[in-house]
Amino acid sequence: MQKIPSFDDVLAARERLKGQAVMTPLIENPVLNERVQGRVLIKAECLQRTGSFKFRGAWNAISRLDGDTAKGGVVAYSSGNHAQGVAAAAQLMKLPALIVMPSDTPRIKQANTRSYGAEVVTYDRASEDREEIANRIARERGAVIVPPFDHPEIIAGQGTSGLEVIEQAAERGISVDAVLVPASGGGLVAGNALAFSGRSPMTQVHSVEPEGFDDHARSLRSGKRERNEKTTGSICDALLSPAPGEITFAINQPRLKAGLVVSEAEVKRAMVFAFETLKLVIEPGGAVGLAAVLAGKIATRGRTIAVIASGGNVDPGLFAEILNGR
Amino acid sequence: MQKIPSFDDVLAARERLKGQAVMTPLIENPVLNERVQGRVLIKAECLQRTGSFKFRGAWNAISRLDGDTAKGGVVAYSSGNHAQGVAAAAQLMKLPALIVMPSDTPRIKQANTRSYGAEVVTYDRASEDREEIANRIARERGAVIVPPFDHPEIIAGQGTSGLEVIEQAAERGISVDAVLVPASGGGLVAGNALAFSGRSPMTQVHSVEPEGFDDHARSLRSGKRERNEKTTGSICDALLSPAPGEITFAINQPRLKAGLVVSEAEVKRAMVFAFETLKLVIEPGGAVGLAAVLAGKIATRGRTIAVIASGGNVDPGLFAEILNGR
Repeated sequence: MQKIPSFDDVLAARERLKGQAVMTPLIENPVLNERVQGRVLIKAECLQRTGSFKFRGAWNAISRLDGDTAKGGVVAYSSGNHAQGVAAAAQLMKLPALIVMPSDTPRIKQANTRSYGAEVVTYDRASEDREEIANRIARERGAVIVPPFDHPEIIAGQGTSGLEVIEQAAERGISVDAVLVPASGGGLVAGNALAFSGRSPMTQVHSVEPEGFDDHARSLRSGKRERNEKTTGSICDALLSPAPGEITFAINQPRLKAGLVVSEAEVKRAMVFAFETLKLVIEPGGAVGLAAVLAGKIATRGRTIAVIASGGNVDPGLFAEILNGR
Repeated sequence: MQKIPSFDDVLAARERLKGQAVMTPLIENPVLNERVQGRVLIKAECLQRTGSFKFRGAWNAISRLDGDTAKGGVVAYSSGNHAQGVAAAAQLMKLPALIVMPSDTPRIKQANTRSYGAEVVTYDRASEDREEIANRIARERGAVIVPPFDHPEIIAGQGTSGLEVIEQAAERGISVDAVLVPASGGGLVAGNALAFSGRSPMTQVHSVEPEGFDDHARSLRSGKRERNEKTTGSICDALLSPAPGEITFAINQPRLKAGLVVSEAEVKRAMVFAFETLKLVIEPGGAVGLAAVLAGKIATRGRTIAVIASGGNVDPGLFAEILNGR
């Protein structure tokens, strides 16, 4: 296993991200607060460069590569958001990027990845092994693999979102009782766990996952890394990793309070609420934290709950269907 | 004519709004900047309390009422956003509110107005006079009329959005070359004109209107208040006032650079761009400034353009249609 990153690595990542990542707003809405009888702070990572938090980790990893190490550029495998983050970071560093994406990835994520100058290779999520494909291409090209979550610099980069939440809340004189973080491989959760345990240790950190893909919730209960039975079939296309990462779980297991789970209907209701009341476009996987708050999966009365709205890359057609209640 | 508000009135409004209005983020997006070869700063008033800037002016006017003056509460006439702003401000002040709304107002605006505890009375936009209806009801009830734009405290309240733009930009070391402000009766434009002429006089202030409802653009050219021929028939339901206000035009005429005009197709493209790239829900009337930037109606190369995205209250069905290209 590679080294486990520390809180200091999150601080270092923050310096590296300055002027490159967007300092996304921490949004509070009176109607939402009233509804849950508490304070909800939405960290709008859907407003991040490339439409999700993934640029943070990608930039933290890729900006440190030198021309010799990465003479063949970078290669990544991703369901979509990491792809865009890597493509944008590589483009800024003037490195070629190739992304291995599942063939059922939302079109907007494939198109956006290409718009950042990356080459896209698709594979069948059910029958092919994306890591194998990526490793073979990286060997052939002399390229560096940028993994989606189980990597110290990726985790440290994602943790900068949590650091910002703590600081933006403190500026308003607020301390955060709990933070809800969407979990796929667990990189965003692990980064937030490092940030909060380092700077706001009383905050309870929770992963949030869709039903049927609750590997973190089960792993936190059993104490070992559990796998999902399915690899497809959730509206939350960004949250389909088969199991927690080795490094991410080593960070998360001792630091997380618990794993929350939400249904597809709860996710859709949260997306409609975000549209109608927050005026934010949140993709299904990015809306699980808000879904957990609205569905009462965590106590909110008199408490302050931060929610990482991790991305907003949703196909227009799907978004329209959800608005129309289909 | 009532008194013309000054820059000091905007400063006073800002103090009154503290802790009540949302300090909405000033959002910058790398893809948008690259596309226009300049810097675009989006003042996301769609994230304001009640989903539009209108809460600012409503709170500034209503929070100063005493129980004797407003013993019968407040009455307003509005195409929707002012209605919600007045209803929410009155609710916070524990005053009853009655809103006279056109019968073709988007359902989301009627429902939201009622959700803030207000009574809604509808009228036919083509055949009835909303001011007459509102005045009659206010007389009967001993209520205070809160006009939508032609009122010194309303204008000063709306101007706080411009003050925030100047200060948020200055925090990042940026000065603003031009600001684009949606215009209906001209209250938001007038408030911004006061704020910018008071604190950032080099910034060029522009009104932006939809085709067919370009009363400000024509009035600025002719030097007198021109009327629109039509009162219905634009997707921009928030921008259908028949003519500039008396007070607002007295402020705007000497301070505005020019009036810009955008087509309905340009507005729809801007809304889709906001969805796909900015991840913001912007209503048609709120998107005219972004539409002007994207359609090249103002020079952007090497310049910094602030855009007031004034609201996000759009019916889900209409939004879905626009996403689907209909």
